[in-house]
Amino acid sequence: PAPSPPAARAPRPRGGLVAVRAEAGGGINPTIRKEEDKVVDTVLTGELAKPLTAYCRCWRSGTFPLCDGTHVKHNKATGDNVGPLLVKK
Amino acid sequence: PAPSPPAARAPRPRGGLVAVRAEAGGGINPTIRKEEDKVVDTVLTGELAKPLTAYCRCWRSGTFPLCDGTHVKHNKATGDNVGPLLVKK
Ligand code: FES
Ligand code: FES
Repeated sequence: PAPSPPAARAPRPRGGLVAVRAEAGGGINPTIRKEEDKVVDTVLTGELAKPLTAYCRCWRSGTFPLCDGTHVKHNKATGDNVGPLLVKK
Repeated sequence: PAPSPPAARAPRPRGGLVAVRAEAGGGINPTIRKEEDKVVDTVLTGELAKPLTAYCRCWRSGTFPLCDGTHVKHNKATGDNVGPLLVKK
């Protein structure tokens, strides 16, 4: 006979109760500069290149600390409503 | 006899498997302006009051969009490493 799928052989949690962390991965930043104790960035307004610059607050941008629009995907996938901080010079 | 605690009477999940969302509450912003589709804020650099202003990226500040230091508590509680965006004029 065909082997059972792996999930069918996973052990049942004892007592049927499972502890679930309130936030996956211990927080809201899954990947950015995890070697740093605290990720802080500084904008020098005198050095802004463009009239308007968007800074990421979703911790999922590929160009962090800049926003690359990935918050849209995050919001759609999770039902969240986060967006960037816009800095206007 | 004393009544059983409510948890003891909770139904056991069928099959012993439980679906767990990757992110609690659907995202990283639990409470801020949830009536808005997307929370975007704008800094007008010409109107900055102080030489240095810290903006929240942890979505837990009581003075959002400003940082009030609550990221420290969040990092300690979850093992995360998030911090503010500093804007210098
Ligand atoms: S990509 Fe993170 S706020 Fe836009
Ligand atoms: S309170 Fe959110 S980054 Fe400081």
